[in-house]
Amino acid sequence: MLKHNNELKQESVDSLRGGKGTTGIIHLLEKDQFHNKGRLFSHMKLKPGVSIGYHKHEGDFEGYYILNGEGTYTEDDKKYSVKAGDFTLTEVGHSHGIENTGTKDLEFIALVLFE
Amino acid sequence: MLKHNNELKQESVDSLRGGKGTTGIIHLLEKDQFHNKGRLFSHMKLKPGVSIGYHKHEGDFEGYYILNGEGTYTEDDKKYSVKAGDFTLTEVGHSHGIENTGTKDLEFIALVLFE
Repeated sequence: MLKHNNELKQESVDSLRGGKGTTGIIHLLEKDQFHNKGRLFSHMKLKPGVSIGYHKHEGDFEGYYILNGEGTYTEDDKKYSVKAGDFTLTEVGHSHGIENTGTKDLEFIALVLFE
Repeated sequence: MLKHNNELKQESVDSLRGGKGTTGIIHLLEKDQFHNKGRLFSHMKLKPGVSIGYHKHEGDFEGYYILNGEGTYTEDDKKYSVKAGDFTLTEVGHSHGIENTGTKDLEFIALVLFE
Protein backbone atom coordinates (compact mmCIF):
# COMPACT_ATOMS: atom_id res chain seq x y z
CA MET A 1 0.00 0.00 0.00
CA LEU A 2 1.35 3.41 -0.97
CA LYS A 3 0.03 6.70 0.33
CA HIS A 4 1.36 9.92 -1.08
CA ASN A 5 1.89 12.66 1.49
CA ASN A 6 -1.41 14.40 0.71
CA GLU A 7 -3.29 11.13 1.35
CA LEU A 8 -1.95 10.74 4.89
CA LYS A 9 -4.16 11.78 7.80
CA GLN A 10 -3.06 15.19 9.07
CA GLU A 11 -4.04 16.89 12.30
CA SER A 12 -3.34 20.20 14.02
CA VAL A 13 -3.60 19.92 17.78
CA ASP A 14 -3.65 22.95 20.07
CA SER A 15 -1.81 22.71 23.38
CA LEU A 16 -0.81 19.06 22.96
CA ARG A 17 -0.37 17.48 26.40
CA GLY A 18 -0.73 20.98 27.82
CA GLY A 19 2.06 22.45 25.70
CA LYS A 20 2.21 25.78 23.89
CA GLY A 21 0.90 26.55 20.41
CA THR A 22 -0.24 24.17 17.70
CA THR A 23 1.46 20.87 16.86
CA GLY A 24 1.14 19.50 13.33
CA ILE A 25 0.85 15.71 13.09
CA ILE A 26 1.07 13.55 9.96
CA HIS A 27 -0.13 10.07 10.89
CA LEU A 28 1.86 7.37 9.09
CA LEU A 29 0.12 4.37 10.63
CA GLU A 30 -3.50 4.79 11.66
CA LYS A 31 -4.67 3.17 14.89
CA ASP A 32 -6.26 0.13 13.20
CA GLN A 33 -3.01 -0.60 11.34
CA PHE A 34 -0.86 -1.33 14.42
CA HIS A 35 -2.01 -4.94 14.99
CA ASN A 36 -2.45 -3.74 18.58
CA LYS A 37 1.30 -3.23 19.06
CA GLY A 38 1.18 0.53 19.50
CA ARG A 39 -0.83 3.68 18.97
CA LEU A 40 1.29 6.36 17.27
CA PHE A 41 3.75 6.46 14.38
CA SER A 42 3.76 10.03 13.15
CA HIS A 43 5.74 12.92 11.73
CA MET A 44 5.44 15.80 14.19
CA LYS A 45 6.00 19.46 13.26
CA LEU A 46 6.43 22.21 15.86
CA LYS A 47 7.01 25.81 14.85
CA PRO A 48 9.40 27.92 16.95
CA GLY A 49 8.05 28.34 20.49
CA VAL A 50 5.66 25.39 20.20
CA SER A 51 5.89 22.57 22.75
CA ILE A 52 4.43 19.22 23.69
CA GLY A 53 3.73 19.37 27.41
CA TYR A 54 5.52 17.20 29.96
CA HIS A 55 3.58 13.94 30.51
CA LYS A 56 4.09 10.44 31.89
CA HIS A 57 4.00 7.23 29.82
CA GLU A 58 2.08 4.45 31.51
CA GLY A 59 1.52 1.19 29.66
CA ASP A 60 3.52 2.35 26.65
CA PHE A 61 6.88 3.87 25.67
CA GLU A 62 7.85 6.49 23.08
CA GLY A 63 10.79 7.31 20.86
CA TYR A 64 11.44 10.67 19.16
CA TYR A 65 13.83 10.77 16.21
CA ILE A 66 14.71 14.37 15.40
CA LEU A 67 14.64 15.12 11.65
CA ASN A 68 15.05 18.89 11.55
CA GLY A 69 15.57 21.85 13.83
CA GLU A 70 16.52 21.95 17.47
CA GLY A 71 14.80 22.01 20.79
CA THR A 72 14.84 21.36 24.50
CA TYR A 73 13.84 17.86 25.53
CA THR A 74 12.85 17.20 29.14
CA GLU A 75 12.88 13.70 30.61
CA ASP A 76 12.30 12.93 34.27
CA ASP A 77 12.83 16.63 35.05
CA LYS A 78 16.24 16.85 33.35
CA LYS A 79 16.64 19.10 30.31
CA TYR A 80 18.68 18.25 27.21
CA SER A 81 19.40 20.08 23.96
CA VAL A 82 18.39 18.01 20.94
CA LYS A 83 18.96 18.47 17.22
CA ALA A 84 18.55 16.60 13.93
CA GLY A 85 19.86 13.04 14.20
CA ASP A 86 19.28 12.65 17.94
CA PHE A 87 17.01 9.94 19.31
CA THR A 88 15.18 9.97 22.64
CA LEU A 89 13.48 7.03 24.30
CA THR A 90 11.01 7.45 27.13
CA GLU A 91 10.50 4.10 28.78
CA VAL A 92 7.34 2.86 30.50
CA GLY A 93 6.76 4.82 33.71
CA HIS A 94 8.95 7.77 32.69
CA SER A 95 7.95 11.30 31.69
CA HIS A 96 8.95 13.65 28.89
CA GLY A 97 8.12 16.79 26.95
CA ILE A 98 9.74 18.79 24.15
CA GLU A 99 9.87 22.43 23.07
CA ASN A 100 11.07 24.08 19.91
CA THR A 101 13.62 26.54 21.29
CA GLY A 102 15.23 27.13 17.87
CA THR A 103 14.44 29.41 14.96
CA LYS A 104 13.38 26.75 12.42
CA ASP A 105 10.60 24.18 12.54
CA LEU A 106 11.37 21.27 14.85
CA GLU A 107 10.34 18.02 13.14
CA PHE A 108 10.58 14.50 14.45
CA ILE A 109 9.22 11.00 14.06
CA ALA A 110 7.28 9.82 17.12
CA LEU A 111 6.66 6.13 17.80
CA VAL A 112 4.53 4.90 20.71
CA LEU A 113 4.44 1.14 21.30
CA PHE A 114 2.63 -0.70 24.07
CA GLU A 115 4.44 -2.14 27.07
CA MET B 1 17.24 8.39 27.46
CA LEU B 2 18.94 10.55 24.83
CA LYS B 3 21.35 9.25 22.22
CA HIS B 4 23.12 11.69 19.97
CA ASN B 5 23.44 10.53 16.37
CA ASN B 6 27.04 9.29 16.81
CA GLU B 7 25.92 7.08 19.73
CA LEU B 8 23.33 5.20 17.68
CA LYS B 9 24.23 1.78 16.31
CA GLN B 10 25.16 2.09 12.63
CA GLU B 11 25.54 -0.69 10.11
CA SER B 12 26.49 -0.99 6.44
CA VAL B 13 24.93 -4.06 4.84
CA ASP B 14 25.93 -5.32 1.41
CA SER B 15 23.23 -6.69 -0.87
CA LEU B 16 20.43 -6.33 1.70
CA ARG B 17 17.72 -8.90 0.94
CA GLY B 18 19.60 -9.65 -2.26
CA GLY B 19 19.56 -6.03 -3.44
CA LYS B 20 22.33 -4.03 -5.09
CA GLY B 21 25.11 -2.10 -3.35
CA THR B 22 25.47 -1.17 0.30
CA THR B 23 22.61 0.01 2.52
CA GLY B 24 23.39 2.24 5.48
CA ILE B 25 21.28 1.62 8.58
CA ILE B 26 21.06 3.77 11.71
CA HIS B 27 19.25 1.74 14.36
CA LEU B 28 16.98 3.92 16.50
CA LEU B 29 15.58 1.16 18.69
CA GLU B 30 17.76 -1.85 19.34
CA LYS B 31 16.17 -5.29 19.40
CA ASP B 32 15.97 -5.53 23.18
CA GLN B 33 14.15 -2.17 23.36
CA PHE B 34 11.02 -3.24 21.45
CA HIS B 35 9.25 -5.00 24.35
CA ASN B 36 8.82 -7.79 21.81
CA LYS B 37 6.49 -5.69 19.63
CA GLY B 38 8.78 -5.50 16.62
CA ARG B 39 12.32 -5.85 15.35
CA LEU B 40 13.32 -2.79 13.32
CA PHE B 41 12.98 0.98 13.71
CA SER B 42 15.74 2.49 11.64
CA HIS B 43 16.88 5.30 9.36
CA MET B 44 17.88 3.72 6.05
CA LYS B 45 20.23 5.37 3.54
CA LEU B 46 20.62 4.13 -0.04
CA LYS B 47 22.94 5.86 -2.48
CA PRO B 48 21.86 6.13 -6.14
CA GLY B 49 21.55 2.66 -7.70
CA VAL B 50 21.37 0.88 -4.34
CA SER B 51 18.37 -1.35 -3.61
CA ILE B 52 16.80 -3.54 -0.95
CA GLY B 53 15.81 -6.75 -2.68
CA TYR B 54 12.23 -7.90 -3.08
CA HIS B 55 11.19 -10.07 -0.13
CA LYS B 56 8.06 -11.36 1.61
CA HIS B 57 6.93 -10.38 5.13
CA GLU B 58 5.72 -13.33 7.16
CA GLY B 59 4.79 -12.83 10.79
CA ASP B 60 5.46 -9.10 10.63
CA PHE B 61 4.63 -5.97 8.62
CA GLU B 62 6.72 -2.98 7.54
CA GLY B 63 6.26 0.70 6.85
CA TYR B 64 8.65 2.93 4.93
CA TYR B 65 8.40 6.72 5.36
CA ILE B 66 10.44 8.47 2.69
CA LEU B 67 12.50 11.37 4.07
CA ASN B 68 14.66 12.34 1.11
CA GLY B 69 15.26 11.42 -2.50
CA GLU B 70 13.20 9.30 -4.84
CA GLY B 71 12.99 5.69 -5.85
CA THR B 72 11.03 2.82 -7.28
CA TYR B 73 9.04 0.84 -4.76
CA THR B 74 7.78 -2.62 -5.69
CA GLU B 75 4.92 -4.27 -3.81
CA ASP B 76 3.31 -7.54 -4.86
CA ASP B 77 4.99 -7.17 -8.26
CA LYS B 78 3.61 -3.68 -8.98
CA LYS B 79 6.04 -0.78 -9.29
CA TYR B 80 5.43 2.71 -7.91
CA SER B 81 7.46 5.92 -7.92
CA VAL B 82 8.06 7.22 -4.39
CA LYS B 83 9.50 10.46 -3.09
CA ALA B 84 9.95 12.37 0.18
CA GLY B 85 6.72 12.42 2.19
CA ASP B 86 5.32 9.17 0.81
CA PHE B 87 4.51 6.25 3.11
CA THR B 88 4.35 2.59 2.13
CA LEU B 89 2.89 -0.23 4.20
CA THR B 90 3.60 -3.88 3.45
CA GLU B 91 1.14 -5.98 5.35
CA VAL B 92 1.69 -9.49 6.71
CA GLY B 93 2.00 -11.96 3.83
CA HIS B 94 2.87 -9.32 1.23
CA SER B 95 6.17 -8.62 -0.52
CA HIS B 96 8.17 -5.51 -1.28
CA GLY B 97 11.50 -4.04 -2.31
CA ILE B 98 12.87 -0.57 -3.06
CA GLU B 99 15.54 0.91 -5.30
CA ASN B 100 17.11 4.33 -5.42
CA THR B 101 16.44 5.31 -9.04
CA GLY B 102 17.17 9.00 -8.39
CA THR B 103 20.35 11.07 -8.31
CA LYS B 104 20.40 11.88 -4.57
CA ASP B 105 20.53 9.61 -1.55
CA LEU B 106 17.23 7.88 -0.84
CA GLU B 107 16.53 8.00 2.89
CA PHE B 108 13.59 6.58 4.78
CA ILE B 109 12.42 5.43 8.19
CA ALA B 110 11.67 1.71 8.32
CA LEU B 111 9.47 0.19 11.01
CA VAL B 112 8.87 -3.56 11.33
CA LEU B 113 6.29 -4.68 13.91
CA PHE B 114 5.16 -8.21 14.63
CA GLU B 115 1.82 -9.57 13.44
